[in-house]
Amino acid sequence: MAQKPSIPKGTRDFNPEQVAKRNYIFSTIKSQFERFGFQPIETPSFENSDTLMGKYGEEGDRLIFKILNSGDYLSKVDDALYREKNSNATTPKISEKALRYDLTVPFARYVVQHQNEIEFPFKRYQIQPVWRADRPQKGRFREFYQCDADVVGSDSLLQEVEFIQLYDHVFSALKLEGVTIKINNRKILSGIAEVIGASDKLIDFTVALDKLDKIGEEKVKEEMLAKGISQEGIEKLQPLFSISGSFESQIDSLKGILSTSEEGAKGIEELSTINKTISALGLKTATLQLDVTLARGLNYYTGAIFEVAAPKGVKMGSIGGGGRYDDLTGIFGLKNVSGVGISFGLDRIYLVLEELNLFPDTITKSTEVLFINFGDNEALACLKAVQSLREHAVNAELYPDAAKMKKQMNYANRRAIPFVVLVGEEELKNNSFTLKNMATGEQTTLNLELLVAKLS
Amino acid sequence: MAQKPSIPKGTRDFNPEQVAKRNYIFSTIKSQFERFGFQPIETPSFENSDTLMGKYGEEGDRLIFKILNSGDYLSKVDDALYREKNSNATTPKISEKALRYDLTVPFARYVVQHQNEIEFPFKRYQIQPVWRADRPQKGRFREFYQCDADVVGSDSLLQEVEFIQLYDHVFSALKLEGVTIKINNRKILSGIAEVIGASDKLIDFTVALDKLDKIGEEKVKEEMLAKGISQEGIEKLQPLFSISGSFESQIDSLKGILSTSEEGAKGIEELSTINKTISALGLKTATLQLDVTLARGLNYYTGAIFEVAAPKGVKMGSIGGGGRYDDLTGIFGLKNVSGVGISFGLDRIYLVLEELNLFPDTITKSTEVLFINFGDNEALACLKAVQSLREHAVNAELYPDAAKMKKQMNYANRRAIPFVVLVGEEELKNNSFTLKNMATGEQTTLNLELLVAKLS
Repeated sequence: MAQKPSIPKGTRDFNPEQVAKRNYIFSTIKSQFERFGFQPIETPSFENSDTLMGKYGEEGDRLIFKILNSGDYLSKVDDALYREKNSNATTPKISEKALRYDLTVPFARYVVQHQNEIEFPFKRYQIQPVWRADRPQKGRFREFYQCDADVVGSDSLLQEVEFIQLYDHVFSALKLEGVTIKINNRKILSGIAEVIGASDKLIDFTVALDKLDKIGEEKVKEEMLAKGISQEGIEKLQPLFSISGSFESQIDSLKGILSTSEEGAKGIEELSTINKTISALGLKTATLQLDVTLARGLNYYTGAIFEVAAPKGVKMGSIGGGGRYDDLTGIFGLKNVSGVGISFGLDRIYLVLEELNLFPDTITKSTEVLFINFGDNEALACLKAVQSLREHAVNAELYPDAAKMKKQMNYANRRAIPFVVLVGEEELKNNSFTLKNMATGEQTTLNLELLVAKLS
Repeated sequence: MAQKPSIPKGTRDFNPEQVAKRNYIFSTIKSQFERFGFQPIETPSFENSDTLMGKYGEEGDRLIFKILNSGDYLSKVDDALYREKNSNATTPKISEKALRYDLTVPFARYVVQHQNEIEFPFKRYQIQPVWRADRPQKGRFREFYQCDADVVGSDSLLQEVEFIQLYDHVFSALKLEGVTIKINNRKILSGIAEVIGASDKLIDFTVALDKLDKIGEEKVKEEMLAKGISQEGIEKLQPLFSISGSFESQIDSLKGILSTSEEGAKGIEELSTINKTISALGLKTATLQLDVTLARGLNYYTGAIFEVAAPKGVKMGSIGGGGRYDDLTGIFGLKNVSGVGISFGLDRIYLVLEELNLFPDTITKSTEVLFINFGDNEALACLKAVQSLREHAVNAELYPDAAKMKKQMNYANRRAIPFVVLVGEEELKNNSFTLKNMATGEQTTLNLELLVAKLS
């Protein structure tokens, strides 16, 4: 019996319309990346396991897809270990390769491995799939694309400025206007933790603070208390709970809170410089907003932290994020290379563009004109015309079989092909072509030259 | 100690220049695919193992990369089996997914799974990586792209005609002129085997015949004898060994040899129709050649067989191939769907374009102009100009740090950026920009408007 075909959970087939829409997003992002001087690289889908393992925490290690060694892989497992029947202990013996979990670690590996061929600062972008053995759920997949731009080898704050501009340019080019680019700085968070005497509880503190929008001030305070932050410390935080207003006025509030922290002051200065430069340059359609509760990937970022929110009214998590990390390549032995980068959330951007009906109609149109097939002689005349049209960059095709007219017209309709050409006996005799507009039903009979002119 | 980074054997990193060159080939092929009415699909990188296993023969099964199940996968292996320590028997218990081995089987699975959403004849193209646990060697990789176009649901010979035209258009668009598109037909080979009384030895016969170029007539005959083909049969083959000349004259010779085979006659008719249609339409830069020794993928193809050879003088295996297969989707339960398709060998095409110096210079140029950074104030003025240039679709960047002039100029040189802009004190005062042509050394001082006009 034949198998009933299916695909693994958490993976997707993409039909022509979906591929076209995804490629529209990719190509818009790519062209802005290149406008800003970023260059593409690609890395292998799988890496040596030791390149990936231990880089994403315990949870990450668990979610990495491992590739089984080829051949008689069990013969490499020694008998004592084999008798334990312990999956975790056995994995490294039977699997030496693993699928890419993100683009950042392979990028770090690339930079170190190719450091002598690279011009620093190295502005690279990379758009490739990654794989995670996560529990699949709505909007979360086991195979999905990441879309990253990073600069390594420069600690200039102009990079942060450029990334804000880049977000603005990309979303403007996608006609997705009104996104909010939120920014924070790890040094601000460290400074606050220092001021309230909770430097050792930075993560607990930021995790709680991050929930302010969702659970409210009182619950956040309760959580902080429960995590061992003192009542006195929490009181010092009070101005933070009501911080609002313009970027500048928030900066002023922060100056008050952080007056005794050197690190906090540095963070304020960085944010302030970035904001001033962006103000001087202007943004096209996005808004830059200081968000002191923003703490994504805190273990990782050392300076700026970015996150992009969809326009108001669209229910959707962040559609982009990033930040500065000071020692990306250290894990592979290249110290003191500062990096900063951002990424775009393709799947979410896709859903937002769909919801707001922002995909241009043109991108899903493939074939412009279908020639109806009435038999061998007519088909040959059609093929000659098809050839001329293709020379003039018109996407054209001939229906391959002399099937019933209705069947051929249905094919044109269902594929949303805007024009059909009919070449019957009469047209064949007169070297002419009857062009039908599928939307209006209008028909005109033309010679080849006019047909080409009309369609190209 | 830090790890010395490396990548798995048989895989590759691609640097910006290589990505640009690969994308040039992909985008040229894609645009021709679409010109011919093909639509893109994408399928997941991994499939359920039972979708792939058993579809590529025993050797294929061995070369498929299997993905280890997550979690405590060994607990699912029953103790009796586990005690055997038998890799082959254990694999299906600890691995349920496998990396795509080619694009054809996933395409067949896609067609069957989505048959109710698809308009037939379905003209699809697919450009995605595949993975094979082959022994890596020069030009053979464990991860490489395939680039396929297929039509399913039509047995019209016009499809074969279109694929020949498609090859011609793609290679012409790549400026790779003079390729030879070789064609044969499975029915011709079956007919010959029938005529010489070796129908049951079709594979042995074609394998031997295929070596004619390499080992010569006598050795081929010896091999055929050794495989049990009769002396009498081999004598009947005699005209085949000296078959040559035009497509038409070869067809005439074949008519003589195959006069008693109905299947052979059908093959001759098909080839003849295809050749006549192609002659009527003409090819741009390729040549169509009948090659009765062509037998690639014989187990698979049922009608036309294609192979493309690089222009004379270039040492390279085939750069493309394909053919007609009559029951692609039968393995997944959808019978009687005829298909025909071709593929392009990206890595070999890349090497040929490199050897013949056919990559356009423009494709590897990324940034058009670099602004030299002389400090904060100058940088801000530069960023404003950079912004204007980007608005005018010029790829522009500012060096992020006020590093030594020499370092910044080196960066421009090594990245082959054709222009730099210098904004020092003088320029800042006058709102002007000094543009330097890196090739000629020529310098001009311009206002913003002229700078934009000059570079866009």
